[in-house]
Amino acid sequence: MSGGVGWGLVGASTIAKEWMIDAIRAQPGNEVVAVMSASPERGRKFAAEHAIAASYTEMGALLADSNIHAVYISTTNELHKSQVLAAAAAGKHVLCEKPLALDLASAREMVKACAVAGVVMATNHHLRNAATHRKIRELVESGSIGQPLFARVFHAVYLPAHLQGWRLNQPDTGAGVVLDITVHDADTLRFVLGAEPLEATGMIQRAGMAQAGLEDGVMAVLRFDNGVLAQLHDAFTVAHAPTGLEVHGTQGSILGRNVMTQRPVGEVILRRADGETTLALEHENLYARGLRAFVDAINGRGVPAATGEDGVRSLATALAVLEACNTSRHATVRYQ
Amino acid sequence: MSGGVGWGLVGASTIAKEWMIDAIRAQPGNEVVAVMSASPERGRKFAAEHAIAASYTEMGALLADSNIHAVYISTTNELHKSQVLAAAAAGKHVLCEKPLALDLASAREMVKACAVAGVVMATNHHLRNAATHRKIRELVESGSIGQPLFARVFHAVYLPAHLQGWRLNQPDTGAGVVLDITVHDADTLRFVLGAEPLEATGMIQRAGMAQAGLEDGVMAVLRFDNGVLAQLHDAFTVAHAPTGLEVHGTQGSILGRNVMTQRPVGEVILRRADGETTLALEHENLYARGLRAFVDAINGRGVPAATGEDGVRSLATALAVLEACNTSRHATVRYQ
Repeated sequence: MSGGVGWGLVGASTIAKEWMIDAIRAQPGNEVVAVMSASPERGRKFAAEHAIAASYTEMGALLADSNIHAVYISTTNELHKSQVLAAAAAGKHVLCEKPLALDLASAREMVKACAVAGVVMATNHHLRNAATHRKIRELVESGSIGQPLFARVFHAVYLPAHLQGWRLNQPDTGAGVVLDITVHDADTLRFVLGAEPLEATGMIQRAGMAQAGLEDGVMAVLRFDNGVLAQLHDAFTVAHAPTGLEVHGTQGSILGRNVMTQRPVGEVILRRADGETTLALEHENLYARGLRAFVDAINGRGVPAATGEDGVRSLATALAVLEACNTSRHATVRYQ
Repeated sequence: MSGGVGWGLVGASTIAKEWMIDAIRAQPGNEVVAVMSASPERGRKFAAEHAIAASYTEMGALLADSNIHAVYISTTNELHKSQVLAAAAAGKHVLCEKPLALDLASAREMVKACAVAGVVMATNHHLRNAATHRKIRELVESGSIGQPLFARVFHAVYLPAHLQGWRLNQPDTGAGVVLDITVHDADTLRFVLGAEPLEATGMIQRAGMAQAGLEDGVMAVLRFDNGVLAQLHDAFTVAHAPTGLEVHGTQGSILGRNVMTQRPVGEVILRRADGETTLALEHENLYARGLRAFVDAINGRGVPAATGEDGVRSLATALAVLEACNTSRHATVRYQ
């Protein structure tokens, strides 16, 4: 393999099409070997449109392909577990979409299976790879705002028409805004704060876009183990709100604007007694950067940007938010 | 009296000094007749510094002054109740600082006493008088953002050194950030949304500025009777965060920036499919505008900007936030 990695795409998904194929091909020597879709037509069409040599309808067939060293899993969430376990058993490295699973025990089992098999496992939390969030983390870590006290995440967006499918009406897939978006907030906050959520509360909203009892909006509060309180606002229903992530400390505030996005954009502003500064950033494709770290990890250099354990912890946080919303009580974030 | 109102200041307070004396004197024919302070020296000094003819040390003496038609009460919060009841019994109109009282029953009793006595009662919720919040209310009411779904209030500030007194260490005075700031958020949200909070959750922070078990920060979520979810962030400990109030709807977002302040400043931005617009505002001293409405009400024209009932409801909301934070359960906002 020597640097190059052959990839199997598990799921002929929108995110694979929009971001991941390009991100894989941006890595020297990496190629997309095959795609798997339960629908033969969908798989063939996807392969043809993206110049992928093979399409499979069965996980077993894809895993039997010896040109494939790693899989990228972006099926609906209820399928992740069996697919990760199968990939690990076949000795393939695993990059899995979030949420890793619908329950914590499954996610833990997936991480363990990859560890036992000796394959690299990562969660596709792209936001850690953003120049904006890396800068925010650096500012927090270096003490530039003193002791961090509060964070705010604004991730209320409008779910594009072409994505208004299972996320809105299939509870068995891990649909709804909390498992779709709040997991990203949780991971990003863990990353920028270098801290772990302990406790959650919040309220969900059903504004009519989501069906079948699913939520299409949430406002939540998290308490972290370093004392920071964070508030989140996530929605599928808000078309014209700017996104953002802020950290407020005893000596200053960091304002990340237009930063909760897949695109390599946004700005980071530092406000302190000495004034307001917009920081210089070198933007880079988030997914390509994530892929680079993943391939490096396969080749024995470092760990992925977001590990399997990170995926477990962001899922645990989102599950605590859901529990709090559904029981009207603060919920402890349970990592085991 | 015919338009002019003679005022008695109950409490030689910072807010009276910084804002209210000027606001009273800006009303044609209105004058500050006397100040009351339990400390004779403090009262005399305050009267001298602000060219007020008389200073009293007893509420009874101030209320016996026939040149006084209305009182402005800005003592610590535990004193409001007895002072309002005494003023009403003496036939004086009442403008009272927030929170009206430390418990709902007391606030209700104060409002009732004023109604029975036939005097005007108002709560000094200044933010309703801001050009910014009036514009936001108008935009929401006219349907410019479609159906409002979410609101956000950013009211995390740094308590100035000269105010770092009872608010931080005297639980019996109704100290702490929730009774000091969250009440204002609640009133402002009720005003801009034209809706009532039903339910609250949240978490408090004790970062070391407040003592005696008091909170110096809070993040909370409210559900309103029109379905809107609102999140609040209030603090005494954050020196460099911008304040703001936003409303997000199905067709657009309203961003109020630098609007949670005593000063007549800030801007209102409307974001919709057709772009982003900064709205024209005619800024005016918030307290002077509130005084004008109060004097008009005394003279039979309209009602105060924030009535006694508004004060009851903002207190009820803040008490629900405290209850939720202290019990780790969602709390119903109880108005009776």
